[in-house]
Amino acid sequence: MMSTIQDVAKHAGISIATVSRALNNPDKVSTETRERVMEAVRQLEYYPNEKAKLLSSKTKEISVGIIIPYISSYYFGELYKGISRTAKAQNVRIVLHELHDESGEQSLMDALTFCKQQGVSGILLSSQFVEKDYDLAISRLKLPVVLVLAHHESAMLPAFKIDDIKASFDAVSYLVTRGHKRIGIISGSLSNPVVGEPRYIGAKNAIDFYQLPFHDKQLVSGGIRFEDGYKAMNELLAARDITGITAVFTATDELAFGAMKRVRDAGLRVPEDISVIGFDNLSISGMFSPGLTTVSQPFADIGVEGVNHLIQAIKNPAEMKPGTYYLPYNIVERESVAQTSD
Amino acid sequence: MMSTIQDVAKHAGISIATVSRALNNPDKVSTETRERVMEAVRQLEYYPNEKAKLLSSKTKEISVGIIIPYISSYYFGELYKGISRTAKAQNVRIVLHELHDESGEQSLMDALTFCKQQGVSGILLSSQFVEKDYDLAISRLKLPVVLVLAHHESAMLPAFKIDDIKASFDAVSYLVTRGHKRIGIISGSLSNPVVGEPRYIGAKNAIDFYQLPFHDKQLVSGGIRFEDGYKAMNELLAARDITGITAVFTATDELAFGAMKRVRDAGLRVPEDISVIGFDNLSISGMFSPGLTTVSQPFADIGVEGVNHLIQAIKNPAEMKPGTYYLPYNIVERESVAQTSD
Repeated sequence: MMSTIQDVAKHAGISIATVSRALNNPDKVSTETRERVMEAVRQLEYYPNEKAKLLSSKTKEISVGIIIPYISSYYFGELYKGISRTAKAQNVRIVLHELHDESGEQSLMDALTFCKQQGVSGILLSSQFVEKDYDLAISRLKLPVVLVLAHHESAMLPAFKIDDIKASFDAVSYLVTRGHKRIGIISGSLSNPVVGEPRYIGAKNAIDFYQLPFHDKQLVSGGIRFEDGYKAMNELLAARDITGITAVFTATDELAFGAMKRVRDAGLRVPEDISVIGFDNLSISGMFSPGLTTVSQPFADIGVEGVNHLIQAIKNPAEMKPGTYYLPYNIVERESVAQTSD
Repeated sequence: MMSTIQDVAKHAGISIATVSRALNNPDKVSTETRERVMEAVRQLEYYPNEKAKLLSSKTKEISVGIIIPYISSYYFGELYKGISRTAKAQNVRIVLHELHDESGEQSLMDALTFCKQQGVSGILLSSQFVEKDYDLAISRLKLPVVLVLAHHESAMLPAFKIDDIKASFDAVSYLVTRGHKRIGIISGSLSNPVVGEPRYIGAKNAIDFYQLPFHDKQLVSGGIRFEDGYKAMNELLAARDITGITAVFTATDELAFGAMKRVRDAGLRVPEDISVIGFDNLSISGMFSPGLTTVSQPFADIGVEGVNHLIQAIKNPAEMKPGTYYLPYNIVERESVAQTSD
């Protein structure tokens, strides 16, 4: 015979309302109550199925779609931690969708369609490629869409991120305060609207602001992965006779890891010969030797804020407020930048 | 007006059966067909909802639960890549559940209950703590459960992993072939049934097999994270006057990263002063300087094999075959182990 919620309440010696709260909003009951309920649930083998729950509860259960480029990105775990903690506390289910082809417009359209088909009530989107062209497709979805670690050309959607231009300016300023004057830039592709262009602009603005020398060969643009950083540093080192660089700003931590490896493979040292500052503060950045000095993005907080905004917008469409919301960042000092008097 | 699959077929100029195949088994149609269908889907705003799909399709859609300790573990992305690729190709949905408290029995029970409540047809479980005590709870679930990167004391469940004892034996043998005779071991907790005990046993077996000296102070056991590796190497270095170690085997790559950082912070070099061999081959292991020589676990393949077995067992319970399935591993040689004549 199937157990009912009444049976669970009786077995645990508490009210049905409390059992319901323990099952649906576990954060709203004490640990002791929760454990008593779960114990009763186990002993009685009580499994409320989804449909029964949907019918019996007054508020329909919400699910949200999360679309991200690569689940194996090193930042994803951090971002997801914030999202899942918040979603769980509000009894919101997550449908995860990975864009296997980061550059594909097609792929993003398919992902939106997939989420819609899964019956989600809203979508949290972390693709870097949300251009004006998508406005029509997104409005046709008739679902709230919130961006995290991304922005939207026509600013039609709420977007949660840090101010990439300002943070890159600050990273280069940090190198300047440590005495560096000849600074290389390893940027992502300048057509990449989050990691590429704005981080290059911020870094270049700083070089202009401090009236530092800047030669063509101080900039290498391309991908944002480890291998790209390795190759880019190779080019910067080859031009060092001309440029005389003593420090490098990289648009991502992965680029920095590649750049540091190349420095070492060339028989040089970080930071004694070349200082490196990164951008992201991935959890692995402190594990390297030397530890990477870098701009720290609040990945978990971005996840929390993004999903909170989405849930509010699902519950009350008037809460959907387009615009870019900048979260605070800081520079984490480790060992990859040396003081120089050069 | 809502579009129907007939409308989509007409618009794309292909049969309803082909449209259905393109939507449900996209890997079974050509890229061109798929694109034509998706283009029609977008233009007509065709969104088959889940319920309609369930009612109309003859085979019920399957969803599987994935329970993992920490989504932010560095191996998770790799494992998930294998799982999602396989699940997607077979039109299987994934419900993800993170065990926030790795050591908690309670937490695993809750996770199993959560997945059951979500209406999944089977569960892929990656917790390291699947003990005999769970046999009753798991059998009560009345769902197939398959383990990945874990094993089960009473061998009641199918488990996909590598042979940890053999792989650890091979890692220490590798150090021996490079001339090392005094070898330290940084192991996980000896009560950890996957990462801890078996990897210690394998390493110690090799030390005994080659009749190498072994002092108490050559072994440090504890956690499996970066910080644990750092602290453990500190202890090994402090006892170096007594033990004379020239190389260290660590039970995880994260332990190795911590150990390498400690060596460097002590003013020593890897591999010139201390060689290090790890276990996992995380995707970041090649980014370090020096690159980490390590046992390579086939994370993606373990995901593929595990979820394939689970899907087969869901479709036909006779296909549920308990036992431990060992996948092949190899040692990836990078730069963290030196040849020595000592």
